[in-house]
Amino acid sequence: MNEFERHPLYKMMHPKSIAFWGASSNPLGMGSVQLNQLQAMRFEGDVYPIHPKETTINGLKAYKSVTDCPTPVDLGIFILPTKVVPEALEDCGRAGVKRVIIVSAGFGESGEEGKELQNRIVEIAKKHGIHFIGPNCIGVVNPYEKLNTTFFPYDAKPGFIGMASQSGSFITQMFVHLERLGLGFSQGFSVGNEAMVDITDCLEYLGECPNTKVIGLYVEAIRRGRKFVETAKRVAKKKPIVAYYVGGSEYGGKAVRSHTGAMAGADLVYDGVFKQCGIIRATSIEELFDFCMVLGTQPLPRDERIAIFTHSGGPGAAAADTADRNGLKLAQFTEDTLGKLRAIAPSTATISNPLDLTFSRSPNDYTEVLPQIVLKDENVSGMFMYMLLPLARVIQTIRSSVSEPGQAEALAEQFVDSQCKAVAALPGTFDKPVVGGTFCRTSEHFMQKLQNDSFPVLPSPERAVKGLAALVKYARLKAKLLSDEAVE
Amino acid sequence: MNEFERHPLYKMMHPKSIAFWGASSNPLGMGSVQLNQLQAMRFEGDVYPIHPKETTINGLKAYKSVTDCPTPVDLGIFILPTKVVPEALEDCGRAGVKRVIIVSAGFGESGEEGKELQNRIVEIAKKHGIHFIGPNCIGVVNPYEKLNTTFFPYDAKPGFIGMASQSGSFITQMFVHLERLGLGFSQGFSVGNEAMVDITDCLEYLGECPNTKVIGLYVEAIRRGRKFVETAKRVAKKKPIVAYYVGGSEYGGKAVRSHTGAMAGADLVYDGVFKQCGIIRATSIEELFDFCMVLGTQPLPRDERIAIFTHSGGPGAAAADTADRNGLKLAQFTEDTLGKLRAIAPSTATISNPLDLTFSRSPNDYTEVLPQIVLKDENVSGMFMYMLLPLARVIQTIRSSVSEPGQAEALAEQFVDSQCKAVAALPGTFDKPVVGGTFCRTSEHFMQKLQNDSFPVLPSPERAVKGLAALVKYARLKAKLLSDEAVE
Repeated sequence: MNEFERHPLYKMMHPKSIAFWGASSNPLGMGSVQLNQLQAMRFEGDVYPIHPKETTINGLKAYKSVTDCPTPVDLGIFILPTKVVPEALEDCGRAGVKRVIIVSAGFGESGEEGKELQNRIVEIAKKHGIHFIGPNCIGVVNPYEKLNTTFFPYDAKPGFIGMASQSGSFITQMFVHLERLGLGFSQGFSVGNEAMVDITDCLEYLGECPNTKVIGLYVEAIRRGRKFVETAKRVAKKKPIVAYYVGGSEYGGKAVRSHTGAMAGADLVYDGVFKQCGIIRATSIEELFDFCMVLGTQPLPRDERIAIFTHSGGPGAAAADTADRNGLKLAQFTEDTLGKLRAIAPSTATISNPLDLTFSRSPNDYTEVLPQIVLKDENVSGMFMYMLLPLARVIQTIRSSVSEPGQAEALAEQFVDSQCKAVAALPGTFDKPVVGGTFCRTSEHFMQKLQNDSFPVLPSPERAVKGLAALVKYARLKAKLLSDEAVE
Repeated sequence: MNEFERHPLYKMMHPKSIAFWGASSNPLGMGSVQLNQLQAMRFEGDVYPIHPKETTINGLKAYKSVTDCPTPVDLGIFILPTKVVPEALEDCGRAGVKRVIIVSAGFGESGEEGKELQNRIVEIAKKHGIHFIGPNCIGVVNPYEKLNTTFFPYDAKPGFIGMASQSGSFITQMFVHLERLGLGFSQGFSVGNEAMVDITDCLEYLGECPNTKVIGLYVEAIRRGRKFVETAKRVAKKKPIVAYYVGGSEYGGKAVRSHTGAMAGADLVYDGVFKQCGIIRATSIEELFDFCMVLGTQPLPRDERIAIFTHSGGPGAAAADTADRNGLKLAQFTEDTLGKLRAIAPSTATISNPLDLTFSRSPNDYTEVLPQIVLKDENVSGMFMYMLLPLARVIQTIRSSVSEPGQAEALAEQFVDSQCKAVAALPGTFDKPVVGGTFCRTSEHFMQKLQNDSFPVLPSPERAVKGLAALVKYARLKAKLLSDEAVE
C-alpha cells in the first residue's frame, strides 16, 4: 500500500461495496434518483439498499439493517431525514462500515440545534473510527471506479482534474461543462459542512492521486488555515492547484455565511495565502476549468515570452492585448527565425509577433512547418495558436477535386486528423506549452481530435492566452516553493 | 425616404443587383468561394459575375464588363488583384455603380506604394460619387436582405446586433458563436482600411437601423475622434453601444499597428472617450456579445439593486461575489416579500438575497410564483436567475407516471415550454431586467425556447451578472447624456 492507498479518503473513493440509505419505491425521491445514478454509471461493486420495509429497490435486494448485508460494506451513503442520521451512523459503527457520505442536510448550516446534532454525529463517528464526508453535501465522483454518488448523470469522460468543492453544484453541474470541453474529473468531492473531512483533506488526497494532473478548488472559506497552507505548499510542488474563492467581497462573504455558515476572509488575505502556497487564483468557475485544461496538459514555460500564431489580425491583436494585461511578453523572434518565416509565408503575411499569416500556401505550413520554426526559436517560451479547421469547409474544398460519393468526406477527415496530429505533437516535441483558441463549436471534428490528444483548445483567443498566463504564474510560484525548500 | 434609407450605406446593405469581380471557374479561388456564399444565402436580387474571358461562373451568366450588365447595378464587389482595382473602379464610375465593397488588400496597410494606390482609388471614387468600404476588408452581412458578401457561411438567424469591426474575423468567425447563443447580426460591417467609409459612418447608420437594438464595435483605433464622439453620443441616447478596444496596451498597440497600420491610443484615453459617449466597454469579444445579448433584450433598471434567484448555494455565492466586483448591490427584500417567500419556499431554503431555494415544492414556484414575488419588491431593480431544466431529466421524472411510449417526451416538452414561457414573460410584466445563467448546453430545449423568446441566458452565473452590470452602467450613462442634453 502506497501513501495514496493509505489515505483515509482512498477507501471512500474505491469501495467494493456500498450500503445505501434513503432510496425507496418512490422513483422521484432524492434517494432513489441518487441510487439510480450510481447504477447508471455501472458501478461494479455490490450495492445494498437499506430500508425498514421494502425488499426490492431499483431492482436490488434491500436489507432491513446494514448488519444484515451479506458481505462487509466499505462505504455507506445517507440520503436520510436529519433526525435518523445519528442512529444510522451507530448502525454503521456496529457493522464495521468505516466510510460514510452524509448527504442529509439540517446540521451545522441551520441554527444551534443543527450544530449540536452535527457535533453528535462527529462524536459517534470518532467513537467507531468512521470517516464521513458532509453532512449537507452532494456526494463524490470517481469515474475511474465508475462511482457517482450524486444525483446528476456523469456525462464526461474519466479525466485529469481532481476537484474539491464547497458547493455541490460546482461538482455536479460541471459534468456537462467538462464534457463540452473534452475534459473530465479524475475524482471530485462535494465537501458540504466539512464536519470531519474538509477541503484540506481532499487536497492532500488529490495530491497523491496518480490520475489527478491538476487540482481545482471551489472555496467559500478555509477552516484550518495553517494545515491548508502546509498541505497546499507540499502539493503545489508536485502539481498545479487552481482555486476560485468567492468570499472576499462584501456580498460574496454574506452569501457564503448564509450558504454554509462559514466565515469568509478578506480578499487580500486569501490572495496572499494562495500566492504563498503556489495556488493559481481563478476569477470564475469557467476560468477555473480553463486553467485546469492548460495546467493539466502543458509543460511549464521557462519564462513569460510567448509567440502569437494566427491567420487573422483581429484575434492576433486581441491575443496580444490580453497577453499584455496578464503579465506576458511577446517574444522577439531571432533574425534566423524571421528569415525562415519570410521564406515560407505568403507575401500578405505580417512577419513579426503576433505572426499573422493571413493564409497558408500549403496546409502543413500552418499546422507543422511554421509553428515548428517559431517554437524552435530560443526567445519563444510558449505559443498561442489561433485555430480554424471546420470539417464542412474542408469537405467543400476537397469535393471539387474528387468524383466518388463519400470520398470527399473520408479524405477531409483524414486530412483534419493528420493536421490535428501535427498540432498535438508540438508541445512535446519542443517541451514548450502551446494553447489553441477558436470560436468553432466544440463538436467540430478537429476540436474532438485535439481534445482526445490532450491538446488544449479554449473557446476564444483571450481565454487561451489567459490560460498561458496561468501556466507562467504557476511556473514561477513552483520555482519559488522549490527554492524556499532548498534554503530550508 | 427616411433618414435610414437616405444614409449612403443603406444602398450598400440593400442592393437589388450586384456585380461581382474576382470569381472564376476555379472553385477554390477566394472570389469563387465568396460568390458561392452570396448564392448560398439565396440573395434574391440579380448577381452579375464580371470576367474578361469566362461566360458562366457558378451557374451565373458572366459579363466582360460592368457596362454590359442588363440592369443598373447597385453594388460592386471586388475580390481582385490590387493593381486592377483602380481600373475596375473607373468602370463602376462609367456604369453608374455608386456602392462598392473592396476586399482586395495591398493598399494603405502595406507600405508607401500601397498608401499612394489607396489615395488614388479614393480620388477615383470621389470623382464618380462612389462610396466604397475597404479596401482590405472581408465584406458585409445583412441577413434580413439575405446578403452575405463574406467567404463564411452565415449560420445564425437574422438578429438585433449591428456590428462594425476593424477586424473581418470578428464579423465572420462570430457567425457560429452567435448561432450558439441564439443571437444574430442585424447588419455587420468589416471596415478594413477605412479609406472612405469608417467605423463612425457605420455607427451612424446602425443608429438609424430599425432592426438594430444594440451596436457592437471592435475597435483598433478611431480615426475621426471628434466625429466619432459626436455620433456615438447621439446614438447612445437611443440604443446601447458596446465596444471592445484592444489597442490600449503596449503589445495590443503594436499588434494594431502591424494589422491595419493605424495608431492606437492610450487605454485611459479610450476609457474616457467611451464613458463620455455613453459606450459600454467590453474586455473580450465574448463579453462584447454577452453584453449585446442583455442590452439588446432587457429593459433598463432604475438602479443597481439586484436580486439573485437560485436553487444552488455555490452559483448564488459566485453571483453575489461577481455582483459586488462589478458595481451592483444586492437588494434588501421588504418584510412583505420575505413573508410571502417564507410561506411558499421549502424549509431548507435560505430566505434572503441571494435567495437559495434548494428545491421547489411545485415546478411553477421556481419559474413563476417566487420570481414574481421578488420582482414585485420595490427594492429590486433587476434579477439574476440560475436556471436548470434539462429535458432528459424532466422526461426521466415524468416517465415513471405515464405508460404510453413517447408520452413522457411529449409531456416533458410541453412542461418545459410552459416553464420557459413563464420565465420569458417576467421582464415585460415587471419592466425590470432579468438575466439567466446556466451551465447547460445551448442545444438544451429550454435554452432554445428562452433564446427564441429573446430571454437572455448566459453560460455561467458570472457572465450573466456581468451582463446585468453592463445594463446598469448603460442606464446611468444614458441618463447622463440625456440630462446633459437638457442643460444644453
